Amino acid sequence: MHYHVNGDLVPAEEATVSVRDRGFLYGDAAFETLRAYGGEVFEWDAHRARLERTCGALGMPDAAPDDLALRIAETLDANDLEDAYVRASVTRGVQPGRLTPAAEVDPSVVIVVAPLPRGGLGGESTWDGPAVVQSVKTRRTAAGALPPDLKTHNYLNGILARLELRRASSDAYRPDEALMRDADGFVAEGATSNLFFVDDGTLRTPAEGAILPGVTRRVVLDLAADEAFPVEVGKYAPDDVRGADEAFLTNTTWEVRPIESVDGIEVGAGPITRLLARLFDEYVEERCYRRESSAPGTDDASDGGDHNP
Amino acid sequence: MHYHVNGDLVPAEEATVSVRDRGFLYGDAAFETLRAYGGEVFEWDAHRARLERTCGALGMPDAAPDDLALRIAETLDANDLEDAYVRASVTRGVQPGRLTPAAEVDPSVVIVVAPLPRGGLGGESTWDGPAVVQSVKTRRTAAGALPPDLKTHNYLNGILARLELRRASSDAYRPDEALMRDADGFVAEGATSNLFFVDDGTLRTPAEGAILPGVTRRVVLDLAADEAFPVEVGKYAPDDVRGADEAFLTNTTWEVRPIESVDGIEVGAGPITRLLARLFDEYVEERCYRRESSAPGTDDASDGGDHNP
Repeated sequence: MHYHVNGDLVPAEEATVSVRDRGFLYGDAAFETLRAYGGEVFEWDAHRARLERTCGALGMPDAAPDDLALRIAETLDANDLEDAYVRASVTRGVQPGRLTPAAEVDPSVVIVVAPLPRGGLGGESTWDGPAVVQSVKTRRTAAGALPPDLKTHNYLNGILARLELRRASSDAYRPDEALMRDADGFVAEGATSNLFFVDDGTLRTPAEGAILPGVTRRVVLDLAADEAFPVEVGKYAPDDVRGADEAFLTNTTWEVRPIESVDGIEVGAGPITRLLARLFDEYVEERCYRRESSAPGTDDASDGGDHNP
Repeated sequence: MHYHVNGDLVPAEEATVSVRDRGFLYGDAAFETLRAYGGEVFEWDAHRARLERTCGALGMPDAAPDDLALRIAETLDANDLEDAYVRASVTRGVQPGRLTPAAEVDPSVVIVVAPLPRGGLGGESTWDGPAVVQSVKTRRTAAGALPPDLKTHNYLNGILARLELRRASSDAYRPDEALMRDADGFVAEGATSNLFFVDDGTLRTPAEGAILPGVTRRVVLDLAADEAFPVEVGKYAPDDVRGADEAFLTNTTWEVRPIESVDGIEVGAGPITRLLARLFDEYVEERCYRRESSAPGTDDASDGGDHNP
């Protein structure tokens, strides 16, 4: 495997950053998790826009290189990957030894890739089964402390939530996603996923403010709007989710993943979840695989499982 | 300069971590900022205890190596440093591509050093002048999201606060530390420092809960107790600090640093600040320099200024 570090393709085992890189010292870095389907990066414009927004909020508006899409394409090519997980990071680089960022930024730009199964129609999911979701005590970081709509290398909030799942696990019960609430106790999202649920035929999802507004979340909302589904974006209590008719999670690698249970209470998929999952697959098929003229979509199902955000 | 990476001394330019190290990907790491005076690491036991507490809270209780003090001593020796800044980091290392930490941890252990002036009696400060402190909007991360008493590589909360200072700066006004409040609006601390102020002869400092309880803060509280100064640990409003008779900041590299002004309102040092600064210097002198039998304390004033937390 080859990764892309500061403009160069390097063997994975040589892909490193300085121990003085601020991305390492402080998690002082923006990133995006992307997915390539048939060689096409899915929803590139939305990911690029969010990356620039994060970099801007971190006071380094020009840090993301103009040729980032090209670097990603080179990394996919070098690894002969068409269906892949891609993580693109832009850090503040090495600076003099002060916490206060220097105005001059020489960013580190890192692209890591891994094979994923084919998506789209007839594609294979990256997850083994529906999500077992467990409420946790760890609250989503408040917007006043670190805006949750920024995607940064400061990910301990989600890691602490996942560690709670470890403590809640037994042989009989293995939750694999945390249900995190905001500081006021309203449902926010999973550690690496956005939450949707269906009640009385209405698709509901927590409003922006305490969540990372995912690119997959937006695609799902657009697909629901196209189908004229009743949609409500609002504030919800954990009980609303536990008592829902259907529920699912979304993120770039999981796409649409049904929720089996919340806090041990069965929820499960249903007709709307299944329809949205199919519409999503069709959307992927149209936007990515059918754009290819020369190379047919491959069926590279070499790796399943959850992937790094 | 040589740094210590995973058991080896390496030239600084070759001191790197994998781009897949979780310390880089997520800031999934504990660290301590230490200071060596005359070759002695100051308050090692307190720093070691906090590092273990952080590692424990991150679900990797045994990650800090037993021989960490030895590795630090080796790094100081290799660079011929007696008076130095030391940053020791313990990350969760490289794991399979999931956010959920694997139980098995092969930590990365990194030690970075830099020269600092001699401390103790007749020592030189690492700061150029008293702190110019400015209140910021960024609030300290709430304990429910990421306990502030853990010292981790998730440092964007403090970086956002410092970026606000950049925006507040002009030719005539250059704040260099942020006054951060907790979620409830009470004064917490600076981005890299604890806050003390004096009013009517009483030394006051924000209580634990919304702060990183610094090692220097504890030493100062102990010194004040030894002198039978009236001390109050509580909850305070920004106005309490603005209207104080004296105020100062503490951290490992700054030691006791007077505050010149808060939000443009002059506060300044005073007799209690100066006395505590002198008692601190005496304590350093006694604990570190006088312990040396062979090598005399050097006067290595090769680097001033604020240092990496």
